Amino acid sequence: VEVRGVTVSAAKPAVMCGPCAVEDEARIHAIAARVAAVGGEFLRGGAYKPRTSPYAFQGHGETALRWLRRAADAHGLRVVTEALGESDVPLVAEYADLLQVGSRNMQNFALLKAIGRTTRPVLLKRAMAATVEEWLLAGEYLLAHGAPGVVFCERGIRGFDPSTRNLLDLGAVALLAHVHRLPVVVDPSHATGRRDLVVPLARAALAAGAAGVMIETHDDPGCALSDGPQAVPLGELAAAVRALRGAEARP
Amino acid sequence: VEVRGVTVSAAKPAVMCGPCAVEDEARIHAIAARVAAVGGEFLRGGAYKPRTSPYAFQGHGETALRWLRRAADAHGLRVVTEALGESDVPLVAEYADLLQVGSRNMQNFALLKAIGRTTRPVLLKRAMAATVEEWLLAGEYLLAHGAPGVVFCERGIRGFDPSTRNLLDLGAVALLAHVHRLPVVVDPSHATGRRDLVVPLARAALAAGAAGVMIETHDDPGCALSDGPQAVPLGELAAAVRALRGAEARP
Amino acid sequence: VEVRGVTVSAAKPAVMCGPCAVEDEARIHAIAARVAAVGGEFLRGGAYKPRTSPYAFQGHGETALRWLRRAADAHGLRVVTEALGESDVPLVAEYADLLQVGSRNMQNFALLKAIGRTTRPVLLKRAMAATVEEWLLAGEYLLAHGAPGVVFCERGIRGFDPSTRNLLDLGAVALLAHVHRLPVVVDPSHATGRRDLVVPLARAALAAGAAGVMIETHDDPGCALSDGPQAVPLGELAAAVRALRGAEARP
Amino acid sequence: VEVRGVTVSAAKPAVMCGPCAVEDEARIHAIAARVAAVGGEFLRGGAYKPRTSPYAFQGHGETALRWLRRAADAHGLRVVTEALGESDVPLVAEYADLLQVGSRNMQNFALLKAIGRTTRPVLLKRAMAATVEEWLLAGEYLLAHGAPGVVFCERGIRGFDPSTRNLLDLGAVALLAHVHRLPVVVDPSHATGRRDLVVPLARAALAAGAAGVMIETHDDPGCALSDGPQAVPLGELAAAVRALRGAEARP
Repeated sequence: VEVRGVTVSAAKPAVMCGPCAVEDEARIHAIAARVAAVGGEFLRGGAYKPRTSPYAFQGHGETALRWLRRAADAHGLRVVTEALGESDVPLVAEYADLLQVGSRNMQNFALLKAIGRTTRPVLLKRAMAATVEEWLLAGEYLLAHGAPGVVFCERGIRGFDPSTRNLLDLGAVALLAHVHRLPVVVDPSHATGRRDLVVPLARAALAAGAAGVMIETHDDPGCALSDGPQAVPLGELAAAVRALRGAEARP
Repeated sequence: VEVRGVTVSAAKPAVMCGPCAVEDEARIHAIAARVAAVGGEFLRGGAYKPRTSPYAFQGHGETALRWLRRAADAHGLRVVTEALGESDVPLVAEYADLLQVGSRNMQNFALLKAIGRTTRPVLLKRAMAATVEEWLLAGEYLLAHGAPGVVFCERGIRGFDPSTRNLLDLGAVALLAHVHRLPVVVDPSHATGRRDLVVPLARAALAAGAAGVMIETHDDPGCALSDGPQAVPLGELAAAVRALRGAEARP
Repeated sequence: VEVRGVTVSAAKPAVMCGPCAVEDEARIHAIAARVAAVGGEFLRGGAYKPRTSPYAFQGHGETALRWLRRAADAHGLRVVTEALGESDVPLVAEYADLLQVGSRNMQNFALLKAIGRTTRPVLLKRAMAATVEEWLLAGEYLLAHGAPGVVFCERGIRGFDPSTRNLLDLGAVALLAHVHRLPVVVDPSHATGRRDLVVPLARAALAAGAAGVMIETHDDPGCALSDGPQAVPLGELAAAVRALRGAEARP
Repeated sequence: VEVRGVTVSAAKPAVMCGPCAVEDEARIHAIAARVAAVGGEFLRGGAYKPRTSPYAFQGHGETALRWLRRAADAHGLRVVTEALGESDVPLVAEYADLLQVGSRNMQNFALLKAIGRTTRPVLLKRAMAATVEEWLLAGEYLLAHGAPGVVFCERGIRGFDPSTRNLLDLGAVALLAHVHRLPVVVDPSHATGRRDLVVPLARAALAAGAAGVMIETHDDPGCALSDGPQAVPLGELAAAVRALRGAEARP
């Protein structure tokens, strides 16, 4: 899948980094600078946040999209960000290079159709309890309605063990990569919910055949508005990305 | 929760019946007649169908809504039907007495907000892998945006055993009914995927404290456009509903 | 399945009550008296306890078996108790009328064979993540090695939601009862881990077709050596058992 | 953990190969020769097989143990094999260097105690639905009863998606390796049930911090008495093991 001049494929895995939510302009610029410096190609960050509780922080919306775009442009990065609802799609599509469908919306078929119609490439997160077949068919909705390409994203499925936040299914990643020959990116931050496991599982993902990794980072994780415990501190991002080298799957 | 003169509560459980999809006008009229005859209060039926594959039958849309409304009105029934996308909400709200949010959309927060704003009561199906807390907070989105009441609906969660289609979680039903004191309806048809288990599990649901049951029925299940194997044949509906009597939870 | 003059079948569901562990002789006598008084047929209680931690209370062993047998005999009850290891089987078989295989041992095939050879009827608990097919085949090990009958016992499988201790699968109960026509008993105490849900789920189990219920009770749950939060206080047992009446499945 | 002169640790991951079941003497010799030639340190193979059905092949017992031991000795390999029941433990301990506890027996506490008393190192497979805490405490049973060391083995847990046989949980592997600092070996053959995913997931396991991999191999998988579809053909074993190089976790 081609995203503004970058091909997302297992042959040269992509590095996508950024905060859970875009919180303020200075912060996203500092993060973008670091992501570019460590060799990342994509800046991620949420403008619209799908929060379990209606009383939690819901994202800064269009303002955040503008900050995100400017920060990415200033540092030569591509933007990947989520559209939460059909009516936000046209606006998000103006700012994003890769439109993200979140795991809670994997089978929100109205959203999939609206996103397909923008003819932008899409990052499709797997739902909490989706089979591989359901995930592939959700991708089919996107392609059937106009999407030029779909990057799948495994972010952990629901498991029974509270020792990790979710259950990373690298068997599904290997299946998509080696049997279906589709590009699949892995998000070890959401999968584990704890930053000390992000690097080992990012390496494991690449070894299993992933076409990229999505890593949450924050300059001050203790104060992050969401998902702080899983964010790699900005000061450790370079070491984390360096530690991924050499882990790629062999052809 | 009050729905056009009917109170949905464990004290007098509601019976909601109908086909998976509204297929044609004569058929939905015949089904409505039978539902009313057996003492049901709600006619269910899909006009917009959330299908795993984009190539499967997607529902007859507004036409089906009209058929459904007329059939319900002719027999004194209330209509419960699903809105799949934000943009369909105003239209569906014109026809439905109880707006359904499907399990794939339980955390489609844009849809929840749009439905809340119609100020109609809502039937909120539990997502495949939602915890009770996530389900309650999805209900909170509806209430916070204007819904006057939420009827929860357990329809089986994802399990590991292919011997039933889904895994009916009556522990969650008992928890909602007896601890949270909220109305929860059970859909044994989707939970099991096989009609021979619908009656035993509908009885079990009522015994656990359910405020109603939702039972799929079809005059010719072998030719149904979707979910035939779980539909109770129309000719057996009276016996099925009769078999539910006396199963209700004791106060 | 016939157990010393009592037939365990859905036609007349059995009531099996007792503490998680047999703690002392006076206590088990008092409990047995109450179980008999409320109409129960079986006294349950653990002499050998399968505890997750090696440092937790492991049961009083043979001494507890003696206490349990005398208490049951004094009140005309049958004994159901667990054998944890092959080498304990002959001893446990001297004291038990119905030999229990715990969920952790459902596929301990050496134990199944040893228990089958005693030619006693067996209560076979379902493993945490066993499919119905695996459960039936574990029963087949018992029958193939000499067991005259197997009572299956659903006690909740592993789920993802911490709001109940386990996930009660009444779909499997209905399947065994109505399709396979096998006797299956339900243990709502272990399934939910909280006593306020025991009665609704015991009623639901009977409605689904269960051939009996197994209810933990204790005269002082706050001081129980194990599983206190799920034990029905002895003083409330009569009301609990009374509340089950009328919930049975219809033929 | 030290096993007859070999230290099992993430610093130098161990390679354990062999057939699911030891089928005949010539075959296990040929397999042992190849395992040694590709640089493996352990020969695995089942003499006692825990089969779901009592009517399936149950293993050749002591005869198979003798074949396995001689084949391993002839090629300088260590033997890892499973003891299914307490009464088999002394015999299996005569032949095995590393005693395996299968996933169905992870909480067979009588077996764990018997194996601990042999004072042999143990390979402890994770149960289908065990939490990491339960797994660690099962290991504690072994250590508390005399085992000098425990190698944990992740072999996939039960999942909902039939596209792979089980669900490989590399998050748990990373947790054991990086947080608990315990040796954990991964069995991608049982985890996926299909040989085309064995190499990518074995690489991923090493990247996540595994102290070794256990790979099923067979000279004629199409005729294997059990688990043929997941066995790497003997002729492809050298390439498979070569493909693992360089995947190890970085310190």
